[in-house]
Amino acid sequence: MAAADVERLIRLLAKLPGLGPRSARRAALHMIQRKETVMLPLAEALAQTAESVGVCATCGNVDTVNPCEICADPRRDPAIICVVEQVGDLWALERASAFRGRYHVLGGVLSALDGVSPEDLNIESLIPRAADPAVTEIILATNATVDGQTTAHYITERLEESGVEITRLARGVPVGGELDYLDDGTLVTAFASRKGI
Amino acid sequence: MAAADVERLIRLLAKLPGLGPRSARRAALHMIQRKETVMLPLAEALAQTAESVGVCATCGNVDTVNPCEICADPRRDPAIICVVEQVGDLWALERASAFRGRYHVLGGVLSALDGVSPEDLNIESLIPRAADPAVTEIILATNATVDGQTTAHYITERLEESGVEITRLARGVPVGGELDYLDDGTLVTAFASRKGI
Repeated sequence: MAAADVERLIRLLAKLPGLGPRSARRAALHMIQRKETVMLPLAEALAQTAESVGVCATCGNVDTVNPCEICADPRRDPAIICVVEQVGDLWALERASAFRGRYHVLGGVLSALDGVSPEDLNIESLIPRAADPAVTEIILATNATVDGQTTAHYITERLEESGVEITRLARGVPVGGELDYLDDGTLVTAFASRKGI
Repeated sequence: MAAADVERLIRLLAKLPGLGPRSARRAALHMIQRKETVMLPLAEALAQTAESVGVCATCGNVDTVNPCEICADPRRDPAIICVVEQVGDLWALERASAFRGRYHVLGGVLSALDGVSPEDLNIESLIPRAADPAVTEIILATNATVDGQTTAHYITERLEESGVEITRLARGVPVGGELDYLDDGTLVTAFASRKGI
């Protein structure tokens, strides 16, 4: 019912994660009514980012330079590599300033259901990185899900020969978390891993 | 932490209705990983739509032609004008094929809280349209909210002199609605407006 151009825009917007047909229509209308301030700047930012951004050949991060700023930053500790599933996880850790080493982005997790095998992930390139004598620790920061842990387990086996120290993130009650709202698995883990004060 | 281009893209996406900072990051990452299939087509669709789409001078609909396809369509009944708050409402009525006349889009509702007065809305241009002898009925299809009803009331007063018939949409139980889940106001209205079978 709307013009063909608008229909196409709505269809494309509806493909983005977090937007369905209804919110895509709202977003399209919002932009059409704010062409100069929202629509054209967004069109330009998309074209510009598509042009400039690529994947870091070393770690799999996305950046406008290759190797990415994190890999190229001499102030970051080259001895520790943090393995994450997705670039979004890397961004989350960076926002929290949780880590001052370097990263390795897998680009997903092993999943029998979704047919994701080790060759589909950025795992092979981690082996030579871990074998570098300058690297002393690999932190497996995959999600605490079944697939995430399966992937961490697989990587642990693959890195066994390298002799590098392999660690994983702590499990327990999240900061600010209320016991009443936590799942049983987290509570059992938090009890089992309790620490002296 | 991400590249400046990516940060700007995320900021712009986060301004869209329905997207917050987190979903904007997810959407940006989704697009960066699908440049050819999602990102560039969307950039092009945005630029194209910004170029081609405008507001219909007659009714306030958005379309690539002016007057819009609905105003220009000779098969649509010129005797009935349906007044809606937003273009999104017009789209919803068109999707439902609820109406075969023409529209008038107000562009909002009167709101003392938000400081929206009659001059801010597309009301003035409705007066001569309603005064056209070819027009026999004005349907006020504003939302069934306080602001929507205030606006309908104001328009009714403004159109009093024109002598045109003014109607509003029926109130009652929505199709598929369960009484147990409906609010008191709807139930009271549905009882008061009950009809013989």
